[in-house]
Amino acid sequence: MVAAAGVMALVAASCIFLVDRFKKLTRTITSEQLRAERMGRYFSPQVASLMNDEQTSGMVGQSQDITVLFCDIRGFTAMTEELGNQEVVELLNQYFTTMVDVVFEFGGTLDKFMGDGILAYFGAPVVYADHADRAISCAKSMQQAIERENLIKKNQGKPTLEAVIVVHSGPAILGTIGSDKRREFTAIGKTINVAARMEAVAKEHEVKILVSHACKELAKQEASFTELAPAKLRGVPEPLRCYALEHS
Amino acid sequence: MVAAAGVMALVAASCIFLVDRFKKLTRTITSEQLRAERMGRYFSPQVASLMNDEQTSGMVGQSQDITVLFCDIRGFTAMTEELGNQEVVELLNQYFTTMVDVVFEFGGTLDKFMGDGILAYFGAPVVYADHADRAISCAKSMQQAIERENLIKKNQGKPTLEAVIVVHSGPAILGTIGSDKRREFTAIGKTINVAARMEAVAKEHEVKILVSHACKELAKQEASFTELAPAKLRGVPEPLRCYALEHS
Repeated sequence: MVAAAGVMALVAASCIFLVDRFKKLTRTITSEQLRAERMGRYFSPQVASLMNDEQTSGMVGQSQDITVLFCDIRGFTAMTEELGNQEVVELLNQYFTTMVDVVFEFGGTLDKFMGDGILAYFGAPVVYADHADRAISCAKSMQQAIERENLIKKNQGKPTLEAVIVVHSGPAILGTIGSDKRREFTAIGKTINVAARMEAVAKEHEVKILVSHACKELAKQEASFTELAPAKLRGVPEPLRCYALEHS
Repeated sequence: MVAAAGVMALVAASCIFLVDRFKKLTRTITSEQLRAERMGRYFSPQVASLMNDEQTSGMVGQSQDITVLFCDIRGFTAMTEELGNQEVVELLNQYFTTMVDVVFEFGGTLDKFMGDGILAYFGAPVVYADHADRAISCAKSMQQAIERENLIKKNQGKPTLEAVIVVHSGPAILGTIGSDKRREFTAIGKTINVAARMEAVAKEHEVKILVSHACKELAKQEASFTELAPAKLRGVPEPLRCYALEHS
């Protein structure tokens, strides 16, 4: 009976230990999965692994030079009125998956989707001195990816897509911004607004990649830039020097 | 010894049972927390509890009549250039928290933040027949909340905020849209584009709440609407009938 009591005490102790271990494990798995899900929304696994939590969730507004990239599908709204709803959603999901892979390939951060638009930037939270070159190379690669997909779509008799991409460099405020229930890692300020307004210029000039002077000046790569007439942007007093860029 | 062996067998079986329970618990807690985090991003806890996973994550594009609400801070970019970066982020986070609470109070869905902008809608995924009234009441309540906060800010010598809100009703495609790593519950289509473009009209006319004709026609509440000259929106062929709405 003494032996049985000893065994029972040992087993009871083991059980308490196990329960405690499992509780800790549960907490660890949960917070790790939440963190992985959060990080995977913005960054490639490679970039996410370079960062720790403080670099993102603790950010309360630091200024950094970045290059912003906006990408929009030309005539998308008209397209949604011709296609079925499910077809529109499937088309967008496939397109976004392809585009985000390219953004991540160049170390970019996916800020958000806006309708058919993509907002990404380069140089934050991981600092890259060559953020302008990364954004330009990414824009070219995105257009090439669209062309490849269009060839497949054409063969399948599906509608093809045409995208307009703008890139602009400058300082931005980076931080985790939102309501207490939904904070997101994002960039705000004039650089982002100017980039957003460059889209109308790109559409007007039927340019596939529009690069601002500020971005071109930072870029070191050889590329065929064609200067356009300075653009008057809504709400921006000084006209913006910008360039059309060939992607092939 | 027979008794001891019996106790050990019983305890071993209990341990196996416990390990299995904990494993299941771990999985349940993890997926529940992920789901709660995902749902809390878009909906109030009350709305989230009305829905099940299929209603959101399974949505691959259904059309629904909704009322879209856009809210923007007037002159925010100029403000960011005067304030410190941390101050800008703190100001936005406080402002968004207040505004999202109001959106949730009226059963709205928070689509996204865009810089200082808020995109919300009413009538999806939970169907409300009175989505136009909810959006109009929400817009009024948001303006009232801003006024209350401005009184406090004034007393503290802090900069006050002025917001422009537009509401527009119509059909939209609802679905979980994005790349394979980041799908979000969102609304797309012409109704959202028109609403986004109404903002420039509201700013031009210095109107605090701008309501489209489509939204006003659906609304049943008594409210003081003042018709404006039909607005020409970029990319929209027919001029839009719209109204200024008093909020106090």
